[in-house]
Amino acid sequence: MSMVPHGGDLAAAEARWGRPAEGWLDLSTGINPAPYPIPPIDPAAWHRLPQHDRLRKLLEAAQTCYGAPADAPIVAAPGTQILIQLLPRLRPGARVAILGPTYGEHAACWSAEGASAATVGSLEEAAAAEVVVLVNPNNPDGRIIGSKHLLALADDLAARGGLLVVDEAFAEVAPAASVAVAAGRPGLLILRSFGKFFGLAGIRLGLALGTTAEIDRLARWLGPWAVPGPAIEVGIAALSDRGWQDETRARLSADAARLTNLLTDHGFSDRGGTGLFRLVEHPEAARVWDRLGRAGILVRPFPDRPALLRFGLPGDGFARLAAALG
Amino acid sequence: MSMVPHGGDLAAAEARWGRPAEGWLDLSTGINPAPYPIPPIDPAAWHRLPQHDRLRKLLEAAQTCYGAPADAPIVAAPGTQILIQLLPRLRPGARVAILGPTYGEHAACWSAEGASAATVGSLEEAAAAEVVVLVNPNNPDGRIIGSKHLLALADDLAARGGLLVVDEAFAEVAPAASVAVAAGRPGLLILRSFGKFFGLAGIRLGLALGTTAEIDRLARWLGPWAVPGPAIEVGIAALSDRGWQDETRARLSADAARLTNLLTDHGFSDRGGTGLFRLVEHPEAARVWDRLGRAGILVRPFPDRPALLRFGLPGDGFARLAAALG
Repeated sequence: MSMVPHGGDLAAAEARWGRPAEGWLDLSTGINPAPYPIPPIDPAAWHRLPQHDRLRKLLEAAQTCYGAPADAPIVAAPGTQILIQLLPRLRPGARVAILGPTYGEHAACWSAEGASAATVGSLEEAAAAEVVVLVNPNNPDGRIIGSKHLLALADDLAARGGLLVVDEAFAEVAPAASVAVAAGRPGLLILRSFGKFFGLAGIRLGLALGTTAEIDRLARWLGPWAVPGPAIEVGIAALSDRGWQDETRARLSADAARLTNLLTDHGFSDRGGTGLFRLVEHPEAARVWDRLGRAGILVRPFPDRPALLRFGLPGDGFARLAAALG
Repeated sequence: MSMVPHGGDLAAAEARWGRPAEGWLDLSTGINPAPYPIPPIDPAAWHRLPQHDRLRKLLEAAQTCYGAPADAPIVAAPGTQILIQLLPRLRPGARVAILGPTYGEHAACWSAEGASAATVGSLEEAAAAEVVVLVNPNNPDGRIIGSKHLLALADDLAARGGLLVVDEAFAEVAPAASVAVAAGRPGLLILRSFGKFFGLAGIRLGLALGTTAEIDRLARWLGPWAVPGPAIEVGIAALSDRGWQDETRARLSADAARLTNLLTDHGFSDRGGTGLFRLVEHPEAARVWDRLGRAGILVRPFPDRPALLRFGLPGDGFARLAAALG
């Protein structure tokens, strides 16, 4: 099991605080609280092996949704996490720079596979690396690095056999920041997550776009039928539903602003974030975290940066959050 | 993409024969045609990250269903195929003997990872191997090797750091053949597939049982949240439903006997199989395959053994199959 701290583990929260009578308000992840409605699923999607033609349709819907070229090599996996686990095998033993602080699994997975993985605070410090990994917009602080800068970095890395990994887990709420339009370019590997923006993290669906050589290797390692039939069907529907996506982007943006206001009104300092979560600082963050936990509201602490907390969007739980903040 | 031939690809069948007006009768896999009914799924299972406590419940249900010790190390994956892809990393570069002919992915995956993988016709020929892989009961011929023999082999391999991989993909229909009761024993790694017996191949759920050392490594490579929330919930329900399992075993056994009778009545020779499929020989197997395909009935040919065909159970399609066989 992973030793990286994560949000979203309600059993652990219950072990600490007990089960709240009104249920958990889980703000410990960056998952859209109003998920894409599960469409009716053909029973054949559960029964049969996943079908190649349906998978192809999913990949095409993803390319279109992300604004990637129609011929950009792309592979789907049962969750972005499994792709993150496989990436180190693309460059065994590489010198890796991870732009941090960021999502902890990147460093953990490269290190576990024997890479020399260093977390760096700026791209300048990454100059000697063969592989550069960054999350854009970043989790948890929402930092965005411009596309021009990223593509130049990918070109530079490609020229010496290296790789730029851009984890766009939250790019649906910042589409202008995405480099998906350049997918297929040498030296560039893009990760996309389905579950966060579409609010369906349980479904496990992640995608990678890159060069033919890299994507073919990932596909071979995943093997045939890596994505479940129901996930393929839900993915096709959601990735093709531009109306829902546009409305959701607007709603998330408004809700994130509302969350920021609520938190700053309660003595937090805004430290960034995205349309799916906010990072805030508070001199007594640990005490607030515990008080919220007792009230059945789970937020994300950072053991090594104890003044910070990350809040996901409360959906219809704004009033409850406001009451618990006092 | 895998180069191993498989059943179940309806798009490929349609490219060859067109789409049958009455729909496909797909007998090209070993999947139970009458699946476990999908229970109502808590929307939270789609929305949230898969929860550790629910995964734990799934693993316990699997241990009980398979007759494994309650403390047997076990890991769940999104399909057995992904486990087969990972196994070679447990013994990099090993000399591997695969008892064949059998499911093609085993040899393909070990070879792809740089192992020296030889298909052998008997366990005697496997004496020098560090890893022995076999499917029990075997696909496609249903050959069963007795538990005593297997456990002695596992002990022998363990004594020299080796590993016996027993793929029990079809063991639900031959429970007496399973070595799951010995799970945890050094040198023994057992694979179990959820989709075939429960008729839910689209869900992608596979399990491995073995020693703590092997299972921990597989779990680390899969990472957290490898199994989707809906698959966890359906798996818990189905693996715990002993009544459905017993009825299904009886029905499958009766249907397999009925299928054998139908095929031998039509000039096929029975070459073995399990309660989920039958392997038969026919001097004009290629012609029969094509005739069935034109009638919308897909069966599994074996390019390197052209006189053989494998038939899955037709469910409520016996009359249609009989008519097509002429």
